[in-house]
Amino acid sequence: MTQPRIYLDNAASSPVSPLALEAMWPFFRADFGNPSAIHSYGQAAKKALEEARRKVALALGAKSSEIFFVSGGTESDNWAIQSAVKMAKAKGRHIVTSATEHNAVIKPLEELVGQGYAVTFLRPDKLGRIDPSALEAALRDDTILVSLALANNVVGTILDIPALVKVAKKKKVLFHTDAVQAVGHIPVNVRDLGVDLLSISGHKFHGPKGVGVLFAKLPRLPHPYIFGGGQERGGRSGTENVPGAVGLAVALEEAVREFRSIDALIALRDRLIEGTLKIAGAELTGDPVNRLPQIASFVFSALKSSVHLINAMNEVGLCASSGSACSAAANEASHVLMAMGYPNNLARASLRLSLSRYNTPKEIQTVIELLPSLVNKAREKGR
Amino acid sequence: MTQPRIYLDNAASSPVSPLALEAMWPFFRADFGNPSAIHSYGQAAKKALEEARRKVALALGAKSSEIFFVSGGTESDNWAIQSAVKMAKAKGRHIVTSATEHNAVIKPLEELVGQGYAVTFLRPDKLGRIDPSALEAALRDDTILVSLALANNVVGTILDIPALVKVAKKKKVLFHTDAVQAVGHIPVNVRDLGVDLLSISGHKFHGPKGVGVLFAKLPRLPHPYIFGGGQERGGRSGTENVPGAVGLAVALEEAVREFRSIDALIALRDRLIEGTLKIAGAELTGDPVNRLPQIASFVFSALKSSVHLINAMNEVGLCASSGSACSAAANEASHVLMAMGYPNNLARASLRLSLSRYNTPKEIQTVIELLPSLVNKAREKGR
Repeated sequence: MTQPRIYLDNAASSPVSPLALEAMWPFFRADFGNPSAIHSYGQAAKKALEEARRKVALALGAKSSEIFFVSGGTESDNWAIQSAVKMAKAKGRHIVTSATEHNAVIKPLEELVGQGYAVTFLRPDKLGRIDPSALEAALRDDTILVSLALANNVVGTILDIPALVKVAKKKKVLFHTDAVQAVGHIPVNVRDLGVDLLSISGHKFHGPKGVGVLFAKLPRLPHPYIFGGGQERGGRSGTENVPGAVGLAVALEEAVREFRSIDALIALRDRLIEGTLKIAGAELTGDPVNRLPQIASFVFSALKSSVHLINAMNEVGLCASSGSACSAAANEASHVLMAMGYPNNLARASLRLSLSRYNTPKEIQTVIELLPSLVNKAREKGR
Repeated sequence: MTQPRIYLDNAASSPVSPLALEAMWPFFRADFGNPSAIHSYGQAAKKALEEARRKVALALGAKSSEIFFVSGGTESDNWAIQSAVKMAKAKGRHIVTSATEHNAVIKPLEELVGQGYAVTFLRPDKLGRIDPSALEAALRDDTILVSLALANNVVGTILDIPALVKVAKKKKVLFHTDAVQAVGHIPVNVRDLGVDLLSISGHKFHGPKGVGVLFAKLPRLPHPYIFGGGQERGGRSGTENVPGAVGLAVALEEAVREFRSIDALIALRDRLIEGTLKIAGAELTGDPVNRLPQIASFVFSALKSSVHLINAMNEVGLCASSGSACSAAANEASHVLMAMGYPNNLARASLRLSLSRYNTPKEIQTVIELLPSLVNKAREKGR
């Protein structure tokens, strides 16, 4: 490797910001108490936990009592779905989602199918958009839940959640949104969205791994999924991960402040898109307009496998992925791109470059310069 | 407060050891990759995660492939129970546990009762022991799981798990043990115990909060409880908490090394017990012999509520609890002590002093000197 590495996989995981890490620090060794303990160590931990909750609530336009700390985005998605199913048990057993959702939504729904639930998987258009009228047509009298991600994790398309919620609410159906890729990257307000349940992951916006949030709209408390000591107002048992919650909250607060420089990030992303599209056979995936500021995503013709490209990039220090990190190693066609109508060969030939505020114009320039020859090299691999 | 605080609530939560924290450090900002990513950041994270798994396996006498990282002891208990129930579905719907278990076992079992399962709650003797013959009598043809903690979290009594497992295995019943208070404090070997499932929490032995382990005996993989990207060999989805896993593993490795000075800790504990029993109306709870090295636990006659004592202690900088941290604030009679046959008034008047290798003889001396007047003060509160 002749140059410093360039990290372009922030949608898989991002480094903890110095500010967040500094805020977490005291809660490992100095104020390490169990928030449920009534002595001074416990009370200090409790205070920090509730301060973190207030910060998250403020960032999302929610009440503190609607914020539940969990172990990550995947647990949050699983809990939201299980809770909704239990809440609306009397009404029916039908759920609507999109075929482009993250596996943290699709897999728990598939598990429910095995238990006798019916799930309708909406198919988006080529840009990854879901038409509200398509949702309307899918709703049934026994529909209990709609789960649609605010922004897609592979192609970055942002859905018009308020319009989709409006359709669901006409039929009084609960609405969950996986906002794991959106929160910290675009302004998110739970009241403007109108959702009942919303999922967040700390490490996607420079918070720590192992911590996430479920927003659950009052007055109803979510039905617990992990049972025990009754932490998080009975909703989520287990000693609270205090440093994790503090880190997530400070990182989110910082990310919201950094929205002031969102235009600079969008400019970087667009330069990256423009540069990459000069490669013959490169195609932008996802919505060119309503897309996350940090995600540039592509497919390449005549590329047998995205793994060839990711490996070629890695050899020169460019760290990126084909899409979801969890399925990257599996070397399968992206279920997201397939659902968007891409043929199998292109759905196996994707590239996701996910930026952060730590990326520099110089880095983007380097990527643009290196990428054409790397794509060529990767294309030769498959021959 | 005229003196430095003395922390005697390590069973609720313990400070992360300097060694564990140092080991975690690089994985927040330097090697922050997602272990599923195939680039160099991802591979470094993956390597650290697998090294942590090997360390935990070594400490427990298990295979690496039997170690699953989760978000904590409570999730581990919940998962173990749910997995066992699904594995043995064809056999029946009866489970045996003890009335002295932690709520992380009791509450998920109560949830199963609501779903049509039958649960037998064994009653221990006055010392918290479960007789293998009592377990034998409780087993039925449709019993699918026995869940008994290796060591009780309130009184520290260590059960004879090998003898209990032997009884269960005669009837081919799965055996889970909540080893949250035992691991890192006494030598634990999964083969010697003979258990199928075992639960661990990092922050109980100077590892971080927000991370735990489920040991699940091969060849059968546990049935997943949180669904998504298929991490942890499909068992537990969600981006792995790499710093958490590394911290837990290093803390456990260190704790095992520190077993060499376990006699010193036991001597401290026994000095504390001896000193405290000089208080009129003080009684040791739990097994005086087969008990955790770090736990000294008592009840006091004529004490209206343990909260009065905990608060009086806290005012002079002694940080302790009545028992389980989760139920401390609730000011209820301990379900553990009630199950052991203590009357309601004593089950509300308990004290748990849980030590660590960081406690000094001087601290213990201070506690012994201060405690009599604090008990008197607390006794006056209730009058």
